[in-house]
Amino acid sequence: MNILLVGATGKLGTAVHAELADRGHRVLTVGRTAGDLRYDIADPAQVTAMYERAAGIDARDVIDAVVSAAGDVPYKTLTAMTAQDFRAAFQGKVQSQIELVRQGLGRVAERGSFTLITGVLAREPIPTGSAASMANGALEAFVRAAAIEIAPQRINAVSPSVFTESLADYGDFFPGMPPVGLAQVVQAYVRSVEGGQTGQVYTLP
Amino acid sequence: MNILLVGATGKLGTAVHAELADRGHRVLTVGRTAGDLRYDIADPAQVTAMYERAAGIDARDVIDAVVSAAGDVPYKTLTAMTAQDFRAAFQGKVQSQIELVRQGLGRVAERGSFTLITGVLAREPIPTGSAASMANGALEAFVRAAAIEIAPQRINAVSPSVFTESLADYGDFFPGMPPVGLAQVVQAYVRSVEGGQTGQVYTLP
Ligand SMILES: NC(=O)c1ccc[n+]([C@@H]2O[C@H](COP(=O)([O-])OP(=O)(O)OC[C@H]3O[C@@H](n4cnc5c(N)ncnc54)[C@H](OP(=O)(O)O)[C@@H]3O)[C@@H](O)[C@H]2O)c1
Ligand SMILES: NC(=O)c1ccc[n+]([C@@H]2O[C@H](COP(=O)([O-])OP(=O)(O)OC[C@H]3O[C@@H](n4cnc5c(N)ncnc54)[C@H](OP(=O)(O)O)[C@@H]3O)[C@@H](O)[C@H]2O)c1
Repeated sequence: MNILLVGATGKLGTAVHAELADRGHRVLTVGRTAGDLRYDIADPAQVTAMYERAAGIDARDVIDAVVSAAGDVPYKTLTAMTAQDFRAAFQGKVQSQIELVRQGLGRVAERGSFTLITGVLAREPIPTGSAASMANGALEAFVRAAAIEIAPQRINAVSPSVFTESLADYGDFFPGMPPVGLAQVVQAYVRSVEGGQTGQVYTLP
Repeated sequence: MNILLVGATGKLGTAVHAELADRGHRVLTVGRTAGDLRYDIADPAQVTAMYERAAGIDARDVIDAVVSAAGDVPYKTLTAMTAQDFRAAFQGKVQSQIELVRQGLGRVAERGSFTLITGVLAREPIPTGSAASMANGALEAFVRAAAIEIAPQRINAVSPSVFTESLADYGDFFPGMPPVGLAQVVQAYVRSVEGGQTGQVYTLP
C-alpha cells in the first residue's frame, strides 16, 4: 500500500515506520522538522498543501492509508493551564488529526483508511493531564462518529498507555499503570491499516 | 446553595432552573440573550467578566455550584464540515465549559461543584454528529481528569440521549435510540449538585 505517515520521526512514528516498511508498504513521511514532506498539520492550510504535494509526487498513485503518530499537548496542573493551553491541545492534537481525515476523504482510496493516535488519558486521568485527556477523548468520539459517515473508507484510533520505551521520560506520571511496548502498539497500526475494522479504538495494553 | 446556572433559558436549562429553585436553591442565571447576567461563555474574557459580576452582586456570598446547560455545535455531514466548524464546536461547547471550571476554581466554595452538559453522541454516533461527538468526548474525558486535581471541589458531566421533549425537533436524527425525559435529566443535575460524587459522567436514560 501507499501510506502517508505523519510524525514518522518521533518515538512512536519511528517504530510504526519500520514495521510498515518491513511489511512491504511504500511509506511517505511527514513532519514539521523531519520527513519526506515538511508540514505543520496543526495548520489546516498546511494539511491542504501536504495533500497537494503528496498527490503531485506520483500522480498515478492513490493514498491507501493515512497514518498519524503525531500530536502535541501541554502538560500542566489545571490551575496552571490557560485558555490558550486548551486551544493549543485542540489545535495540536485534535484539529490536526481531524483535518487529516476531513481533507483526506477526497484524496484517499475508496477503501482506504485513517489511523489516528489518542492515548490512555482519554479513560484514565493523571494530574497535569487535563488537556491531554480532553484531546484524546475528543478524538476517540470523533473516530466513532466519522466511521459511520465515511464507509467504505475506514477510520480507527490507537489508544496506548505510556510506552515502555518512554518510562524513563514520563514514567513518574504513570505510577502503577501498566505500560505498553512499542512493538505491541505498532501491531494496532498494522491491524487498522491492513484489517477491515472501522470505528474502533484499540486500547493498549 | 448559591448556584450560577448558564443556559438557564434553554430547553434543558429551563427545566434545571425550575427544579433547583423548587429545591430552595438561589439561582443566578446566565445566557447570551437572556438571564440575570448576559455573557457569551465561548469567549474566555467574558467568563472572567461573568465571575467578576457575579461576585459583585452580593460580596458576602460564595458560589456553591456552577451548573451548565449551554453549548452550541454545528451539525453537518463530515464532507460539509469545515475546519472552522470543528473550531466552533470546540469554542461553543468545550472551551466554554472548561473556562467555567478553570476560571471558577478560585471563585467557587471549597466543597463546591461544577456540572457540565455533554450528550449521548460521545458514545453513540449519528450522521452529521461528528463535531458534537468530538465536543462531548472531549468534555467527558476532561471531567474525569479535572476531578482528580480539584478535590475537594467536585465536577461531573450529565450525558443525556435526545430529550423526549426535543423529539419533534431532532427525533429523526435518533431513529430507535431511547430518548430521555427532562424530568430524569434534571435529577442527574440534582445528584451532581447536592450529592458527593466527582469525576462522574451520568449517562441517561
Ligand atoms: N510517549 C508515550 O508514552 C505515549 C503514550 C501514549 C500516547 N502517545 C501519543 O503518541 C503520539 C506520539 O508520541 P511520541 O512520544 O512518539 O512523540 P514524539 O517523539 O514527540 O513524536 C512526535 C512526532 O510527531 C511529529 N509532529 C508533532 N506535531 C506535529 C505537527 N503539528 N505537524 C506535523 N508533525 C508533527 C513530530 O515531528 P516534528 O517535531 O518534526 O513535527 C514527531 O515526528 C502523541 O500524540 C502522544 O500523545 C505517546
Ligand atoms: N436537546 C436535546 O435533545 C439534547 C440532548 C442531549 C444533550 N443536549 C445538550 O444540552 C445542552 C442544552 O440543549 P438545549 O436543547 O436545552 O439547547 P437550547 O434550548 O438551545 O438552550 C441553550 C441555552 O444555552 C445558552 N447558551 C448557548 N451558548 C451559550 C454561550 N456561548 N454563552 C452563554 N449561554 C449560552 C442559550 O442562551 P442564549 O442563546 O441566550 O445564549 C440557551 O439558554 C446543549 O449542550 C446540548 O448539546 C441536548
